[in-house]
Amino acid sequence: MTAQEIYANILIKRSFLCVGLDTETDKLPGHLLSATDPVFEFNRRIIDATAPYAVAFKPNVAFYECNGTAGWESLARTIQYIKEQYPDCFVIADAKRGDIGNTSKMYAKAFLGNLNADAVTVAPYMGEDSVTPFLSYDGKWVILLALTSNRGADDFQYYTANNERLFERVLRVSQKWGSSNNLMYVVGATRAEMLREVRAIVPDHFLLVPGIGAQGGSLKEVAEYGMNSGCGLLVNSSRAIIFADSSRDFDKIAAEKAVEVQQEMATYLG
Amino acid sequence: MTAQEIYANILIKRSFLCVGLDTETDKLPGHLLSATDPVFEFNRRIIDATAPYAVAFKPNVAFYECNGTAGWESLARTIQYIKEQYPDCFVIADAKRGDIGNTSKMYAKAFLGNLNADAVTVAPYMGEDSVTPFLSYDGKWVILLALTSNRGADDFQYYTANNERLFERVLRVSQKWGSSNNLMYVVGATRAEMLREVRAIVPDHFLLVPGIGAQGGSLKEVAEYGMNSGCGLLVNSSRAIIFADSSRDFDKIAAEKAVEVQQEMATYLG
Repeated sequence: MTAQEIYANILIKRSFLCVGLDTETDKLPGHLLSATDPVFEFNRRIIDATAPYAVAFKPNVAFYECNGTAGWESLARTIQYIKEQYPDCFVIADAKRGDIGNTSKMYAKAFLGNLNADAVTVAPYMGEDSVTPFLSYDGKWVILLALTSNRGADDFQYYTANNERLFERVLRVSQKWGSSNNLMYVVGATRAEMLREVRAIVPDHFLLVPGIGAQGGSLKEVAEYGMNSGCGLLVNSSRAIIFADSSRDFDKIAAEKAVEVQQEMATYLG
Repeated sequence: MTAQEIYANILIKRSFLCVGLDTETDKLPGHLLSATDPVFEFNRRIIDATAPYAVAFKPNVAFYECNGTAGWESLARTIQYIKEQYPDCFVIADAKRGDIGNTSKMYAKAFLGNLNADAVTVAPYMGEDSVTPFLSYDGKWVILLALTSNRGADDFQYYTANNERLFERVLRVSQKWGSSNNLMYVVGATRAEMLREVRAIVPDHFLLVPGIGAQGGSLKEVAEYGMNSGCGLLVNSSRAIIFADSSRDFDKIAAEKAVEVQQEMATYLG
């Protein structure tokens, strides 16, 4: 999928919402537990309910991996379902992988090849040869961690040499590895004011912004500081949408939450 | 497993070798391909052949994940086999995970809970709350990336503020999160002279050292600069041992390669 195609879909849906599929088994509505694959059944209903208001879905791989082989089945089914039913939607495998070249190549095969996700999140610590194997798939994307939304982001991401913080260094150095058509960055919403500084370094790249909803970031500020002429934002919300309700109508309530976010996004799209 | 138990086993086997199970399907001996689970069959024979000379095994998770659910079955079988047959051996899930707290908790469950590995490798970029969930399993370990063995290590790990490089910062800050009984560090052998500087910061912690063998690091230098009074080293070799031969005797040749390394290690153990 190209940046142009993502932007076209944003304009059609008047939304830059990414629905995070952090599908924690313990939080599933009780009546789903008798299904053959409760995690997939939950995801399928969430996807059907929210796809009209979302341009992307982001399965968080940890929540599948913790269920072992059954979890991998749920993950594979979920991605396949989105690709078949909603081919306009961008699918992000939130995996935060990264290893030496020959190993990253295997992770790339797992997520961009076999599972056929459109993008995978990658950690930058091991540098260029840990990232570039993910960039060799045509039409697929790396979403590199720059500034994350958690408290621990302070520990190393703000490490400052010559007035340049580590996350800024990551943004500057990694730009040479890909283009704004195959490389995005994770920038957390909990520090929305930092988006202005990020935009000064990467004006054209899409940013994946976690941290609104349960983590407390402000969508208004994210739009104000982070948007560019091609929108340039995918804003993720996970728990605040998918676990808004645990009744038999959980999917309808999730859709209502997604609509709320979409309607606010529409106002920022002008 | 405690540091004391690992050291006791090092003294018994006169070895601090970790055999890396980077079991790439394309490199398997042809005659194994008809087995029900060729990857596990290969691993089982490598493990049986090399366990007398090794104190640890390190499945590289990418090489399993790229085979989807079948790969997870191979990984689970491999870890279970080692735990049952060679309970003295330390099992490292080389996964390089790390995410916000509630997500790292799920990765910890996957590797230290369900798969029952003794340790998991973790990337430091997201800071404290991305690492500590892995430290809450009694008798289990985090092995945190500090200085890796690949070319890309230069991109960010040497980023220097106030005469302190990022990898040194990672070592200093992360020491507060755990102890030398649940926290080790990855330090690559391709820069063995750096081990002296690492030891000045973390004198007591075990170091997992990749990069000898196929990646060219020197075992002699690693031992000279990295060893402490409790050995403090687990030196990994993957391809140079497990793929030394592809005939029906591949496991015997692997054992010969492991013996060579073990015998050299014995001389450094004094």
